[in-house]
Amino acid sequence: MESAARERTGRTTLRRVLVGTMLIAVPAVVVVVVLGLGSAYEPVAGTAAKAASAGPDTYARLLVALPVILGACYLAGVLAKRLGQPPVIGEIVAGILLGPSLFGLVWPGAFGWLFPGGVVSAINILAQLGLIFFMYLVGSEIDLDAVRKRGFTAATVSQVSIALPMVSGIVLALGMYPVFGGDVGFLPFGLFIAVSMSVTAFPVLARILTDRGISKTPLGALALTCAAVDDVAAWCLLAVVVAVSQGGAPSEVFLTVGLTLVFVVLMLYVVRPLLVKVLARVPEPAVLAILLGGIMLSALATNEIGIHALFGAFLFGVIAPRKDPVVARAAGKLGSVTLTLLLPLFFAYTGLHTEFSLLGSGSLWLWTLAVTAVAVFGKWAGSTTAARLTGVGWRESLSLGALMNCRGLTELVVLNVGLQLKVISPTVFAMLVIMTLVSTIATAPALTLIAKFGKKSEKDSEKTAGPAAAESR
Amino acid sequence: MESAARERTGRTTLRRVLVGTMLIAVPAVVVVVVLGLGSAYEPVAGTAAKAASAGPDTYARLLVALPVILGACYLAGVLAKRLGQPPVIGEIVAGILLGPSLFGLVWPGAFGWLFPGGVVSAINILAQLGLIFFMYLVGSEIDLDAVRKRGFTAATVSQVSIALPMVSGIVLALGMYPVFGGDVGFLPFGLFIAVSMSVTAFPVLARILTDRGISKTPLGALALTCAAVDDVAAWCLLAVVVAVSQGGAPSEVFLTVGLTLVFVVLMLYVVRPLLVKVLARVPEPAVLAILLGGIMLSALATNEIGIHALFGAFLFGVIAPRKDPVVARAAGKLGSVTLTLLLPLFFAYTGLHTEFSLLGSGSLWLWTLAVTAVAVFGKWAGSTTAARLTGVGWRESLSLGALMNCRGLTELVVLNVGLQLKVISPTVFAMLVIMTLVSTIATAPALTLIAKFGKKSEKDSEKTAGPAAAESR
Repeated sequence: MESAARERTGRTTLRRVLVGTMLIAVPAVVVVVVLGLGSAYEPVAGTAAKAASAGPDTYARLLVALPVILGACYLAGVLAKRLGQPPVIGEIVAGILLGPSLFGLVWPGAFGWLFPGGVVSAINILAQLGLIFFMYLVGSEIDLDAVRKRGFTAATVSQVSIALPMVSGIVLALGMYPVFGGDVGFLPFGLFIAVSMSVTAFPVLARILTDRGISKTPLGALALTCAAVDDVAAWCLLAVVVAVSQGGAPSEVFLTVGLTLVFVVLMLYVVRPLLVKVLARVPEPAVLAILLGGIMLSALATNEIGIHALFGAFLFGVIAPRKDPVVARAAGKLGSVTLTLLLPLFFAYTGLHTEFSLLGSGSLWLWTLAVTAVAVFGKWAGSTTAARLTGVGWRESLSLGALMNCRGLTELVVLNVGLQLKVISPTVFAMLVIMTLVSTIATAPALTLIAKFGKKSEKDSEKTAGPAAAESR
Repeated sequence: MESAARERTGRTTLRRVLVGTMLIAVPAVVVVVVLGLGSAYEPVAGTAAKAASAGPDTYARLLVALPVILGACYLAGVLAKRLGQPPVIGEIVAGILLGPSLFGLVWPGAFGWLFPGGVVSAINILAQLGLIFFMYLVGSEIDLDAVRKRGFTAATVSQVSIALPMVSGIVLALGMYPVFGGDVGFLPFGLFIAVSMSVTAFPVLARILTDRGISKTPLGALALTCAAVDDVAAWCLLAVVVAVSQGGAPSEVFLTVGLTLVFVVLMLYVVRPLLVKVLARVPEPAVLAILLGGIMLSALATNEIGIHALFGAFLFGVIAPRKDPVVARAAGKLGSVTLTLLLPLFFAYTGLHTEFSLLGSGSLWLWTLAVTAVAVFGKWAGSTTAARLTGVGWRESLSLGALMNCRGLTELVVLNVGLQLKVISPTVFAMLVIMTLVSTIATAPALTLIAKFGKKSEKDSEKTAGPAAAESR
């Protein structure tokens, strides 16, 4: 083709000249005609321009803000990876630094210019959509069969690793409530603090385990299963908090719980088989549309029930058929765009709501320290003790304790719900964000430390972990 | 694994009972502890719930509106396909029917409930983002090399198929201006009407050609190349319209044109080679982030220059390396989400701004008829005559005229820009939307008709189209 085209070059030279002439001549003629005819009317210039300039301003600013957020999160992610941390930590930190805590503090002018009201609300909408898509992705990675198979150890560790931080969280909340409770009832406040202490970030944990190449080891498989159970438990508990904080009367809370149970049963036993059938029949482009619609309608359902929209999206992810390659491909596409474009916006959204300057006094920093200590200790002690009691070796148990402390993104989602419901104040929100960052960042170094000091007991722990290894797939 | 797990069933029954007991006991203990401790404080119920209920309303409504839009567009697309039309026609019609023209007319209560102000502005943001991503995709499908190779015929047909409708559009605009001009100058108004007459929808045309299995024939290749040239020309002309309508003084317009030229040269000769190098080096997840950032920054650049953001996104698509499989994969992911989720929102956004009820009087419908006739005739006559003069057979020339009349989505984008800039009134917008629908819907039946009545001349036209076939890749 290429050579054939070249052979004709000589013959077509004249044509090309003609084409070139036309390319200039035709538009020129058109413009002259327009200008000639146009002079018959009085032009009223500038009116349209002025009227139009008010609208697209937010849009233009959004075209600056989005690349800035994407770029900052991406670079911070790369930096975090170099420092031996999961990239998501870098992205979270970048999002927070773009908020009033750093960018807004050192350069308030640029901050106000980059994030005017319209841009913030656009970021919010995109972040909320991104979050429900992300919850779907998290749900779709949870393998209920694996959880069932791991049985005793996973269930025990998960239960205790939730119960101990929850109880210590409530004790902490008893102390915090008179200072930070505001006009919120103790029940939602205490429950919320308790839940926020007990969260483990399943997706971040999965990434840490994969990065270290230990996701297929007995420890890795156990940690993933426990985190999956913890994740499901966290969303259930959060749903309880939302129900408690929204419905005043006990009868309303019971109604919410009842509707939630009906919804879960419907999703598992009606929507799930239906979805498998429908998705197997429709053409490929329809699969993504059906998934998107399903995510949003499930989110809507739980939102209307009175627990959070996130729970519905998560549950839809759990029931969606993940082994179908067409569905997996559609989910992969949604996942890429969500993780690349929308999730950084959620980090920025979180950052815009985080004000470390609220922690002005020394006593508030002491409270932050206490919150962090209780969160880390409760989760670590709970997970380690439970694992040890079910026959897991010391080193493995301690490592599991470290891993379960990885709160990451999940905790941020929980905190945002609390702030949105006004169960916690912006001050408590800032304290809990610091707790999240510290406990998540500590995961990787803690694992390294435990591995270093536990080398001698390696043989021993491998023997003990034997049955767990057989249980894993 | 499965059988090994089953063998242990007997041994683990006791454990399972224990697990079951714990699953109920642990949360129960926690709740009792919470309630016990919580009674020490007075609960102030309901306050948080009331404060929180104002915010998430838009969000909840969005979770209804988005699935409704997605579902309606998807079903209409399927219906259109059954009727022998490209699915996008169905999606466009569904979007318009969801607006005040039908849904808002027959059921204003539900319309107002589904699309309150917050939801409309959220849809707008998503639609605008979707549009620049879509423009990138359109740009990335335009093969500059193929356009160069087809040379004479493509350039001539394109030029004439733009020039003739533009000139007839200006004549029409002379008649329309006293009635519909408002306080807009004739220059932007006339130019805009002229441009809107000359648009061909490259992506819709590509889909029609693929659906009919003629995209690889001489006619198909010629039509695609012409449409690509037309598309580039349309965005350049639209850029001129935007520049003219925004900058009052001629010096400002010249500055805009100059900056645009600098931008195009920079993109082609600096950004393009740089992008090839960078994209070949970064890890795969970064590719999508870089593409997204590039699209938005290019859109921002042209927006700031004073031509529309769409042009920048389109140009970025043209220069992005499309042969790199990693880039193609990233673009594919973005494309799926854009076409499935965001583009239906653009159709709904268009529908929300289209009010056929504005065309209340008979004279307005006569104007609509005149606009449609001029648009169809100008484009058809221009394309057919030019193709015939360059040696293409009669049947092929007439088919090309029919194909170039496919205005579809591109025209809607152009019309929205005009409405946004207030160069045209909502009434003219509604008229032009009808023109778009009629001329696009007519494409497929017209092709069928021409094929039916032109069977006898088939042999002849194939002979004539010989050289064109050799030119196509």
